[in-house]
Amino acid sequence: MNKFTKEVMSVGEMASGAKLTVPVYAFKAENNTGSNTGSNVYIQANMHGAEVQGNAVIFQLLELLQHCKLQGNITLVPYANPVACNHKNGEYTLGRFDPITGVNWNRMYHFDESVIEPFAQQYLDASEDDIKDKFQQLLVNEVESKLEQNTWGLTTGQRIAYQLQRLAHQADIVLDLHTGPISSKHLYCPEYAQDSAKYFDIEHTLLIPNDFGGAMDEATFCPWWSLQQAYQTLGRKFTMGQGAFNKESFTVELGSQEQIDLDVAKQDALSILSYLQYQGVIDNEQYQPQKMTRYAGYLKDYKALYSPMGGMVDYLAEFGKPLAAGEPLARILRMDNYGDGEALHYVSLEQEVIPILHFASASVNQGTELYKVLCNYFKL
Amino acid sequence: MNKFTKEVMSVGEMASGAKLTVPVYAFKAENNTGSNTGSNVYIQANMHGAEVQGNAVIFQLLELLQHCKLQGNITLVPYANPVACNHKNGEYTLGRFDPITGVNWNRMYHFDESVIEPFAQQYLDASEDDIKDKFQQLLVNEVESKLEQNTWGLTTGQRIAYQLQRLAHQADIVLDLHTGPISSKHLYCPEYAQDSAKYFDIEHTLLIPNDFGGAMDEATFCPWWSLQQAYQTLGRKFTMGQGAFNKESFTVELGSQEQIDLDVAKQDALSILSYLQYQGVIDNEQYQPQKMTRYAGYLKDYKALYSPMGGMVDYLAEFGKPLAAGEPLARILRMDNYGDGEALHYVSLEQEVIPILHFASASVNQGTELYKVLCNYFKL
Amino acid sequence: MNKFTKEVMSVGEMASGAKLTVPVYAFKAENNTGSNTGSNVYIQANMHGAEVQGNAVIFQLLELLQHCKLQGNITLVPYANPVACNHKNGEYTLGRFDPITGVNWNRMYHFDESVIEPFAQQYLDASEDDIKDKFQQLLVNEVESKLEQNTWGLTTGQRIAYQLQRLAHQADIVLDLHTGPISSKHLYCPEYAQDSAKYFDIEHTLLIPNDFGGAMDEATFCPWWSLQQAYQTLGRKFTMGQGAFNKESFTVELGSQEQIDLDVAKQDALSILSYLQYQGVIDNEQYQPQKMTRYAGYLKDYKALYSPMGGMVDYLAEFGKPLAAGEPLARILRMDNYGDGEALHYVSLEQEVIPILHFASASVNQGTELYKVLCNYFKL
Amino acid sequence: MNKFTKEVMSVGEMASGAKLTVPVYAFKAENNTGSNTGSNVYIQANMHGAEVQGNAVIFQLLELLQHCKLQGNITLVPYANPVACNHKNGEYTLGRFDPITGVNWNRMYHFDESVIEPFAQQYLDASEDDIKDKFQQLLVNEVESKLEQNTWGLTTGQRIAYQLQRLAHQADIVLDLHTGPISSKHLYCPEYAQDSAKYFDIEHTLLIPNDFGGAMDEATFCPWWSLQQAYQTLGRKFTMGQGAFNKESFTVELGSQEQIDLDVAKQDALSILSYLQYQGVIDNEQYQPQKMTRYAGYLKDYKALYSPMGGMVDYLAEFGKPLAAGEPLARILRMDNYGDGEALHYVSLEQEVIPILHFASASVNQGTELYKVLCNYFKL
Repeated sequence: MNKFTKEVMSVGEMASGAKLTVPVYAFKAENNTGSNTGSNVYIQANMHGAEVQGNAVIFQLLELLQHCKLQGNITLVPYANPVACNHKNGEYTLGRFDPITGVNWNRMYHFDESVIEPFAQQYLDASEDDIKDKFQQLLVNEVESKLEQNTWGLTTGQRIAYQLQRLAHQADIVLDLHTGPISSKHLYCPEYAQDSAKYFDIEHTLLIPNDFGGAMDEATFCPWWSLQQAYQTLGRKFTMGQGAFNKESFTVELGSQEQIDLDVAKQDALSILSYLQYQGVIDNEQYQPQKMTRYAGYLKDYKALYSPMGGMVDYLAEFGKPLAAGEPLARILRMDNYGDGEALHYVSLEQEVIPILHFASASVNQGTELYKVLCNYFKL
Repeated sequence: MNKFTKEVMSVGEMASGAKLTVPVYAFKAENNTGSNTGSNVYIQANMHGAEVQGNAVIFQLLELLQHCKLQGNITLVPYANPVACNHKNGEYTLGRFDPITGVNWNRMYHFDESVIEPFAQQYLDASEDDIKDKFQQLLVNEVESKLEQNTWGLTTGQRIAYQLQRLAHQADIVLDLHTGPISSKHLYCPEYAQDSAKYFDIEHTLLIPNDFGGAMDEATFCPWWSLQQAYQTLGRKFTMGQGAFNKESFTVELGSQEQIDLDVAKQDALSILSYLQYQGVIDNEQYQPQKMTRYAGYLKDYKALYSPMGGMVDYLAEFGKPLAAGEPLARILRMDNYGDGEALHYVSLEQEVIPILHFASASVNQGTELYKVLCNYFKL
Repeated sequence: MNKFTKEVMSVGEMASGAKLTVPVYAFKAENNTGSNTGSNVYIQANMHGAEVQGNAVIFQLLELLQHCKLQGNITLVPYANPVACNHKNGEYTLGRFDPITGVNWNRMYHFDESVIEPFAQQYLDASEDDIKDKFQQLLVNEVESKLEQNTWGLTTGQRIAYQLQRLAHQADIVLDLHTGPISSKHLYCPEYAQDSAKYFDIEHTLLIPNDFGGAMDEATFCPWWSLQQAYQTLGRKFTMGQGAFNKESFTVELGSQEQIDLDVAKQDALSILSYLQYQGVIDNEQYQPQKMTRYAGYLKDYKALYSPMGGMVDYLAEFGKPLAAGEPLARILRMDNYGDGEALHYVSLEQEVIPILHFASASVNQGTELYKVLCNYFKL
Repeated sequence: MNKFTKEVMSVGEMASGAKLTVPVYAFKAENNTGSNTGSNVYIQANMHGAEVQGNAVIFQLLELLQHCKLQGNITLVPYANPVACNHKNGEYTLGRFDPITGVNWNRMYHFDESVIEPFAQQYLDASEDDIKDKFQQLLVNEVESKLEQNTWGLTTGQRIAYQLQRLAHQADIVLDLHTGPISSKHLYCPEYAQDSAKYFDIEHTLLIPNDFGGAMDEATFCPWWSLQQAYQTLGRKFTMGQGAFNKESFTVELGSQEQIDLDVAKQDALSILSYLQYQGVIDNEQYQPQKMTRYAGYLKDYKALYSPMGGMVDYLAEFGKPLAAGEPLARILRMDNYGDGEALHYVSLEQEVIPILHFASASVNQGTELYKVLCNYFKL
């Protein structure tokens, strides 16, 4: 049975001086095989306060990984953002953004694109392993210098994000466990890693381009993708597999927020083990992907539909099933119009889409995001 | 087809001067039969902002009542509290209390017990009809004088509550449509009206005593119950049926908050019509209660269970089914304890209970209300 | 120089498992004089989250008390409610009520009036010292049994309140440091302790009756006042000074919320030392009350004025100075009415009052509490 | 006396169907002189909910402009964002961002840079007046097509912003009235319009570059600045005065949020009239700028200082006065450290700065923005 270590990382202080900490669990491959031949993995959960199911998945992973043959190191971080996960507003958790500034907690990671080209120039002829080592060190150093350079200080969210990112940059594979509001399971996957999406038991995959917007997945794969492109521009190509130096990062959307279910979490843990088995991080053949129809689409085709009116929404469309053009996504109740106006307004689209998630509450303002849907999808 | 009237009642102003209004729908029995022989009815919904399903029920009632034989007047008020129902906090609606003061919106109705005894003395020998008329007028006057006496002003919630109460006091039957957080359907019913509970398609009934705590149901039945008791003390008894001058008020809990479902609302509307048919407000025999096992219990046996720890809750107990002593209601995940403490804590009780509702979010502080359960229940 | 002890009391847990603690500072009289002849004192601050100035006052008291001649024990508790004081909502601290339930944090203390009469009967002929000891023990036991009886659990606020109350009941003098929203300094003082109010450097005193509403001051003086009355009813009178067994509790309102000022806190600390000197808790004659005109009034004459309209308020009346009848308290801007209505509405009263505090923001709904004012005031 | 028109613009709907409207006041120069020879002006206030003082300034401007000689049209819009200005959270107004999404309300205006170069190519040889007319029409059309293209809808904030921007694009001069949290008066001014800053009675000016970040001022001056640069690249220069086709936009920061003061607003209105007199919008020589030392600096030198710790802040530095290197900006109280740590932490900088604003509350998390200060300032 594999042993793991547990450390506690301090990520913030509140007004009373109360310290907020994050537990960090780590398995070392050496415990198992004596040689670490697989990729290293970083998994975190609950960066957004209300998205708690990932903590239950990490619970199940900790249970299961103790009985796996580990080929790589695995670091697991539940409660990644205790500021957010402890922030109740009414009965719910106001956790998608810093309640003081409004900034999305998952838009504060760091990537300075200007480091790419000089690095590629400097290490143009280095070995692939050397490049990976040196560039990884560069990324870690960048984040550490941010944490240590304190003339003007860091925002609350940067301090948390950079500490997590420091851990994540030391891995080859990064899984950031999130949920939608009321949502089906879906996966954010870099375009180059499309083949890997089949190893998760998740029906819908959004393929994302090399654009850095501040999120954890982007912060850990964009540098490597950009680096590979820089080398390509300089005339050097790499043969070591798909994508970006075998680095892969995913945002795994586990379903709906504000709830945990340990039984479902077990299924999600098995799905992750199937992917880790495929990647050679563990050597346990029993973990295989389930058979299912998997759909994918490009991020540009993942669209938000905003409410054309204020009202109360009866969400009708099922998640994950193609919805024909003209079929209703929702009907909006407007009792103030009963008797002298349109008391029920049906919302539909002029094209076929797959509904992926919808807003968390029936009550919407004009302009509230009602649904996110995938257009122009295809089978993986 | 019965016609209804629609009026708009102004209940508040916001900082920009924006006026908040409430639509008031009314059916008059005269449209139908030429004589109003039945009781008059007042139905409102959405006093708590997130409890929106009642609006959908009123929608369905308006659809159905147009085709009923009306024996009494019926007034229906959706969106009873637009201040609350428009108050978003993050994605959810912060609607159980005034966001400025914390006061529960459903604790601001008026009842001044000191008017009871003088009235009974004054009208000791009056006819029952006369007593009903005069006392109803007294209650309406009381509320109107509150609305008009403005030296020191009214709170935001009082202004809304009193305007609704003015309408409600003019009815014999009051239905206040609410929901729980995540909840089964249940009914708050005055103890004396227990027989009526069987006519709703609701499995659980909480029988409440003659204690005024500020809620709409209490504000409309407590005065009549107290009046009857006052007459009894003075030696006069009434024969006109159960309870308190045939006045009945219920808080109808329609299920969970933050969602509407028009199909379920249709069922709830039929359940209400079944009760109105029983009361003679409509004359449509097709509306009959469904056969189901109905449980009831006293309010003192309707208990809240507070979380013994902070953590993330996997709610396990099914609503509405008796849960044996010792069976788990929930398990609380505490990932910070994984490896060196109790990562999963099971919560159970030492007696059999029926779970009625639970908290709206997995994330709880130590002391958050986890469940409300009914002890010492019995079949109706 | 007096030494103090510091302990850390755990008062709650949040969803991530983060523990919230409260520091408890204590001076023992024995350190100083060898005999504890004075009253014991309990001082707390910041039960309401935004009311932070009391922490600074406790800082200054800790600085000063180290150099006093102590005749009694003094316990000081800053950050009394870390759940509230850490709860940011936007830039501000949402701290007057539990953000989940809306319940005012200062309405959750315990007092069960039914213990009074049996106690007085049982100890009818006991010595005064014995009565004080036994009754104090009873009060402590009551609160401890609440903390330990956990079948159904305690609310978040009860758990905090009871732990603080356990400390407070062990003192003779209780000072609960609060602030208003935007406010002058004022003092809540039991009617029987009116003479003591002159020893604080606070211009306005509200004299409160023996009604328990759940607040800390009431929870610690009402039991003693009620006990004295019970003895009086039984025919026994006490000669040991004014009021209720020499027990005194005050809510000290230090000014406005959301700010600390250490220099002003020094003045407030000196004011408290003046009162402690008067009470014989310290023996340092330099601490004497300042000369000032002190006004007082009864709680029933301390009135809230609610806004007659929504709008934006230019607060005009100065705090603490009598305002003649008809003089404007505020003017309310309603730009939506400019050009075709009343764009500026002046608010005044028909009697002379002393304005004590006003709402924290210019933006008000219809029915928001604008001002609190003292009517029928008199000089102390 | 000049007449103005008043229209009501509908900008949003809430869940109850309540419509939110904005009053739009307009003076036409023709009323006055028969010929509109001056620039047209657009002034709005209260885009951020808590920043209400601008409404009072518009009140005073409406009072004063009725007595001016108008050379240009002037449109004034108070309560620009009623969703934000009506959103109370506790006692305060949560108004800097959409409470559902966290997006800053003043980051949702529209500017599509890709229209610039084709326009300059097409109108390379057009007259200056023609260019101004055509480009203005282009900007208005762009925004209108956004408002009308509704397949996927608009966010709540976009709908409001675009409607305001449609009005603003029809003016030559745009003043967006804001406030800081607790703040001195200051002015955001495009670098090219530096000379104009001297005509406002505002001591501090931040000179901003041609970077579009979504704010109203940028949305209205960046297009013109970019257009001028595009023409310059194409070899055409314009002689018609400084800057960008005589278009000027300012964000006027009027002081602190959450308060209005009609007397101070009068001063601010006079300051704006002084600028309008300088620009020839009015012809009233009595409106001249006050003599004062005006400081300016570049936006890159306007820096935020984040709190190095959680705690309670006693803000010490005065606004608007140069603060020497090493002098304390603030001291942070940490009572939890009293006795065994650093209970008071002083915050200072290693360079001279002018403090412009600080956070609205004493209570801060680690990483909360404490101060914004201007470095490398110079006299205007």
